Amino acid sequence: ASKGKKKATGTRGGDSLRTARPPLPHPNLSAGDRRGARPPPPGGLPLLLAMALQGKKLINNPDDVVTEFIEGLVETYPGLQYLDGFPEIKVVLRADAVGGAYDKVAVISGGGSGHEPAHAGFVGPGMLTAAVSGDVFASPPVDSILAAIRAVTGTMGCLLIIKNYTGDRLNFGLAAEQAKSEGYKIEMVIVGDDCALPPPRGIAGRRGLAGTILVHKVAGAAADAGLSLADVAAEAKHASEAVGTMGVALSVCTLPGQVTSDRLGPEQIELGLGIHGEPGAAVVELQTVDVVVEHVLKQILSQETQYLPITRGSNAVLLINGLGATPVMELMIAARKAVPELQLEYGIAVDRVYTGTFMTSLDMAGLSITIMRSDENILQRLDAPTKAPAWPVGSEGNRPPAKFPVAVPPSPSMKDDEILSERQELSKQGCMLEAAIEAAAKELIDLKDNLNDWDSKVGDGDCGTTMYRGATAILEDMKTRYHLNDAAGTVNEIGSTIRKVMGGTSGILYDILCKAAYASLKQNKNITAYEWADALEASIAAVSKYGGARAGYRTMLDALIPASTVLKQSLKAGDDPVTAFIASAEAASAGAESTKQMQAKAGRSSYISPDHLVSIPDPGAMAAAAWYQAAALSVKNKLHASES
Amino acid sequence: ASKGKKKATGTRGGDSLRTARPPLPHPNLSAGDRRGARPPPPGGLPLLLAMALQGKKLINNPDDVVTEFIEGLVETYPGLQYLDGFPEIKVVLRADAVGGAYDKVAVISGGGSGHEPAHAGFVGPGMLTAAVSGDVFASPPVDSILAAIRAVTGTMGCLLIIKNYTGDRLNFGLAAEQAKSEGYKIEMVIVGDDCALPPPRGIAGRRGLAGTILVHKVAGAAADAGLSLADVAAEAKHASEAVGTMGVALSVCTLPGQVTSDRLGPEQIELGLGIHGEPGAAVVELQTVDVVVEHVLKQILSQETQYLPITRGSNAVLLINGLGATPVMELMIAARKAVPELQLEYGIAVDRVYTGTFMTSLDMAGLSITIMRSDENILQRLDAPTKAPAWPVGSEGNRPPAKFPVAVPPSPSMKDDEILSERQELSKQGCMLEAAIEAAAKELIDLKDNLNDWDSKVGDGDCGTTMYRGATAILEDMKTRYHLNDAAGTVNEIGSTIRKVMGGTSGILYDILCKAAYASLKQNKNITAYEWADALEASIAAVSKYGGARAGYRTMLDALIPASTVLKQSLKAGDDPVTAFIASAEAASAGAESTKQMQAKAGRSSYISPDHLVSIPDPGAMAAAAWYQAAALSVKNKLHASES
Repeated sequence: ASKGKKKATGTRGGDSLRTARPPLPHPNLSAGDRRGARPPPPGGLPLLLAMALQGKKLINNPDDVVTEFIEGLVETYPGLQYLDGFPEIKVVLRADAVGGAYDKVAVISGGGSGHEPAHAGFVGPGMLTAAVSGDVFASPPVDSILAAIRAVTGTMGCLLIIKNYTGDRLNFGLAAEQAKSEGYKIEMVIVGDDCALPPPRGIAGRRGLAGTILVHKVAGAAADAGLSLADVAAEAKHASEAVGTMGVALSVCTLPGQVTSDRLGPEQIELGLGIHGEPGAAVVELQTVDVVVEHVLKQILSQETQYLPITRGSNAVLLINGLGATPVMELMIAARKAVPELQLEYGIAVDRVYTGTFMTSLDMAGLSITIMRSDENILQRLDAPTKAPAWPVGSEGNRPPAKFPVAVPPSPSMKDDEILSERQELSKQGCMLEAAIEAAAKELIDLKDNLNDWDSKVGDGDCGTTMYRGATAILEDMKTRYHLNDAAGTVNEIGSTIRKVMGGTSGILYDILCKAAYASLKQNKNITAYEWADALEASIAAVSKYGGARAGYRTMLDALIPASTVLKQSLKAGDDPVTAFIASAEAASAGAESTKQMQAKAGRSSYISPDHLVSIPDPGAMAAAAWYQAAALSVKNKLHASES
Repeated sequence: ASKGKKKATGTRGGDSLRTARPPLPHPNLSAGDRRGARPPPPGGLPLLLAMALQGKKLINNPDDVVTEFIEGLVETYPGLQYLDGFPEIKVVLRADAVGGAYDKVAVISGGGSGHEPAHAGFVGPGMLTAAVSGDVFASPPVDSILAAIRAVTGTMGCLLIIKNYTGDRLNFGLAAEQAKSEGYKIEMVIVGDDCALPPPRGIAGRRGLAGTILVHKVAGAAADAGLSLADVAAEAKHASEAVGTMGVALSVCTLPGQVTSDRLGPEQIELGLGIHGEPGAAVVELQTVDVVVEHVLKQILSQETQYLPITRGSNAVLLINGLGATPVMELMIAARKAVPELQLEYGIAVDRVYTGTFMTSLDMAGLSITIMRSDENILQRLDAPTKAPAWPVGSEGNRPPAKFPVAVPPSPSMKDDEILSERQELSKQGCMLEAAIEAAAKELIDLKDNLNDWDSKVGDGDCGTTMYRGATAILEDMKTRYHLNDAAGTVNEIGSTIRKVMGGTSGILYDILCKAAYASLKQNKNITAYEWADALEASIAAVSKYGGARAGYRTMLDALIPASTVLKQSLKAGDDPVTAFIASAEAASAGAESTKQMQAKAGRSSYISPDHLVSIPDPGAMAAAAWYQAAALSVKNKLHASES
């Protein structure tokens, strides 16, 4: 693209045409006078220094923002193309509609820039055929508009849709007249949807705002359906007469290369602001968005101004539009209020909701609300498919009259709150499991102070207390909740007990450990030492996968991984289960001791200098080794007792 | 929806789990400690006062932002639904995938809120089946994740895609293990695409950023294509290993209900910031976006970190992501730089570009860039249709290797720069036209000081000078450019002359006047007084339509409208053309005089108190009456002269 030095082109401001002298104040657009009061653009200063003194933006030369936006837009969307002739001519058009052979009514919109994604983002099959951009907040010059008309208008003719600003009316109007004199069929529809201000005296009329986007969609879909120019224009006019908009801003916008205004204080918002930062109807104290939405809807639907032909019982569509710097979260919160407010307070059925960023005012924080009376035909046009990038996806189709949230599905198998009704008769295995759990828990209770002591040197000092809490709860729940004859189920329940009482990472990791062991164990009808060994391996894998630790990271895995390895080896070598379990427990203890020499790579110890860690074992590893060894010894003792 | 008092739920922070004590610093997410240093939340203050002291947002109670966002989201998109169980359970799901009968692999994502539209905005056919939200920047609790899994998982199983934060890994991990133990088939893919920081020590790993969105799309499309859980998970994993992201911020984010940070000065930006406001790799001076993009791409593609398996000759897709408060214009400007930079500097073919707002950090101003190595299969997945609202439209399909702007179409008929090669032989009508134009122009030249004088009292004092400039140019161009025997063409040329030299509204309005007259005249082969009368009427209609003025608005139309009316009446009454013209001119003068009593409703006079206007005529009306009367008199004299 050619990128020469920019010339002053076209007319400035939405309404006041460029002249040699500073613009006069205008009740309908006085951004001009504020701009006049600002420091002059930084002609001589080096670019970066100048930028630093201005509102922060991710741009290059402030003079190039519009052309560079267009270049980025066509890089992003393969279906869009632009006319040459930068910087004067800034026209985005459908790549497939170039050449004058377009066989449907061309729909062209445009105006000053600074309202992105409008209007170029709405170019695409089913919406605009082309968009003409001026400089920021300046109407495009007649030659650009003519170039757009000539580029895409075929025998069906062309509809121009513009927002009601004098500059746009005159420039598009002159282009329309000239195009007509060249033999093109041209119609023009002017949108003035502002509902914030009383009807202005004289010719200015109401400002064109985000409602224009809905008019684009209606006209674009009508054109795409093959209608004649007269019919497309009639539908667009009908839509333009059924739409009303009002905005509210938390901050005014900053023009590229200019300083940020401090017009709105930290506790103020402005109601009825225009999309060029024109002053609104009132500056008020910050309100909740619910109050703001109530006020805006009241203004739009005012019986006094009668701006909108909407009454109780009407149907309407709703558009919540971000003004440039408004997060999606806030727009959705406004939508959440506006829909029931319209339905319940005004008796208006809301057919469609469009929430997003459509017609902005540069980086203004705030939103506008648009209401358009809907009927069958308008809904059909709004729902018609389009490839225009900035038109929202997923808003089409009838909304259910009310949405009731889906009930939360219950667990298909877990019986968390069930309490054993009677003392269970324990099998031999159940007795052994009971003994092992009791021994493991008591060991942790005994070890509380040691664990806290180690943890106070390498962590936050609560490891012993946390383990104590879990162990105590396990002993308690074991009496009333664990089906000890069901080893898998018991392990699962232990996990639930732990998560109920143990906060922090250790609680969730131990629950993961138990859940993984349960999932492994429950696949088997008979649970022998081999199944326990598989379950331990599966548990370690899950803790490592979700927690991210591996051997040598100075965590409980440094006890459990050696234990698992030795258990498997020992069983494979043909050792009896108790021997294997004891050998495995010794490996766990040795592994835990070995953490004294390890640097921490996980948890809070990882923030502590390695010097402080030497000779202090990882308390999590020590705890794991302790309960494991206690369990192993209790199994050994239980078996010896039953054998002797 | 039920909206009780919110309980503290789940785990806080992307990585540090909720405990009773304040979180310790963490190299990978220290938003926690900054938040710790902030003033405490405004418990006892009245809500509005409290809001006023905080960062300005369009919200209600800061505790409700996530649930209210979800409610607004489902109001907006008929295809989305949510689970009951607020505020603990915050799950958005496909309305058509509820009930466990879903016959494809369910794809679920989620994490802390504050990243809207992620993740709930990506729920829809072809992308996510459900999204689980935690509180702002807090991982969702296990029970919410389980509820989501149970709600949408059928026999094909479920893939969980999460960003690499410890809280998400543990909560989603535990939910996965528990779901498995309930009999669900579950796989999990963890995305850690951050390229800003060196690989962290130990388990934390790289942060999950906007690249996660591309993994969602690949997995969602694979699931939609009917693939098995193992295959969907394998494609997601493959995609997660091929993606890298880095962010840059102009401002840090403000949590709802908290004060805005002043961490970044007015001249600073932060490179490599995390999506929770975690500190980045460096704070640097503000740069042009071109420099920023160059730096970010260099980091992502660094040969040192080798984060991305992309080399010269690779293909890739590009995602330019706004962080919450970044205007579309700025994102597109970044895209415009990134594409050729990748292609020309790194030899990487850019297959697709996605520019928009996908994964935010509340209201942070800034952007992130994501690059994913692409292949045939990934492109097929990315291009596959989806109804997910926040996935961009129009980015799919092969990009042309280079886009050359379309040539600006020339005017099909206008010959603006043609100069008459020789003195033309004038017809009788041509002579009369010449005389009329000359008389009209000379009258305006003579009237210059009067017009300026009137205008200085009611406007900006340049009406006479402007008219003088136009009149002089017309006299000049008439000699060399006007085909005076062609009345229509001459009128058209007069318009062009005027627009060339007359600035402001009057220039463009007179050009519209001439263009409309030309379009009217050129329909006729013979131009008599009747055709001139029609042309005058058409001119007035066009000026009124585009300029907005009507009779009585104190504009030039107050001279021309009476002139037109009388001309038509007089001709209709059978008067001869000269008589009619003279009568019409007298009506023009009388009309112009009558503006002395009018209030201004257009132009600059409308700002002036009516008292000041009394007895001063509108200079524009006086000018119009003057040239009109001069023309009429010259025609009369010319005819008399030729008759005598």
